[in-house]
Amino acid sequence: MPDDEANPGMRNWRALQPLTEAECMGLLADGGMARLVYSSRYGPTALPMVYRIDGESIVVGTWDPALFDEDLRTGIARAEYQVAVEVDQIDLEAREGWIVLVRGAAHHIDTEAERAPLIGPDLEPWIEGVPAHLIRVAPTSTWGNRILRA
Amino acid sequence: MPDDEANPGMRNWRALQPLTEAECMGLLADGGMARLVYSSRYGPTALPMVYRIDGESIVVGTWDPALFDEDLRTGIARAEYQVAVEVDQIDLEAREGWIVLVRGAAHHIDTEAERAPLIGPDLEPWIEGVPAHLIRVAPTSTWGNRILRA
Repeated sequence: MPDDEANPGMRNWRALQPLTEAECMGLLADGGMARLVYSSRYGPTALPMVYRIDGESIVVGTWDPALFDEDLRTGIARAEYQVAVEVDQIDLEAREGWIVLVRGAAHHIDTEAERAPLIGPDLEPWIEGVPAHLIRVAPTSTWGNRILRA
Repeated sequence: MPDDEANPGMRNWRALQPLTEAECMGLLADGGMARLVYSSRYGPTALPMVYRIDGESIVVGTWDPALFDEDLRTGIARAEYQVAVEVDQIDLEAREGWIVLVRGAAHHIDTEAERAPLIGPDLEPWIEGVPAHLIRVAPTSTWGNRILRA
């Protein structure tokens, strides 16, 4: 019997198990809610956004492009901003779950030709008056951990 | 009858409603899971952590201090690292929820005198072999939005 069942007052210890890149991308396969992480003029920033996997990259759809229209552009052609995409699913009661952090350059999807095939039920705009703005992140590093019973 | 009930195929438009500082802190009052956001040597970073409100500051408890032992220290006495604490609660089905982003300096709680009164059921360590490491963030800016039916 685990310690925490025998002694409910005792701590339920957990362990961290590093995930491989393939495991990380597998956990992201279904899309959902991620946080786009970057340094804005005002400091470190993370904003929740919907995302889906497209090939080997992550496409995030933002609900307020005004927030980072300037922030996420270097102003230099082909020089892209470094960002991270964070996704986690942690059950605080069970103390179990996982976290994935993917880093890469933020490619703004500015042409309709590139945008049209990506817009679907999971990336459609849903803030009134604000078209969905999409950003593609091609991973340059992928890191993740699973939280398990120790 | 709202559009989306009459026409389930239509988009369920939503609107963003800015939150006041007091409303933001009110939403954080119960603690739970936040993400600590900062620039590490490896790039933009966000890691999920448990948090609670203590007076006017946010205290986060980390599950892997090794991750930012160096990252989050400037090496200069009293010069603290700029971080953000992000908390959101968004229901993707209902397309409703909120997001709060608080920025401030990261104060490492390195003394037992400062640490002891903060450790409790919501901030106790739960990764085996890793003591909880606490960081206090005194907000210098607080920003939030609620996502509502348009």
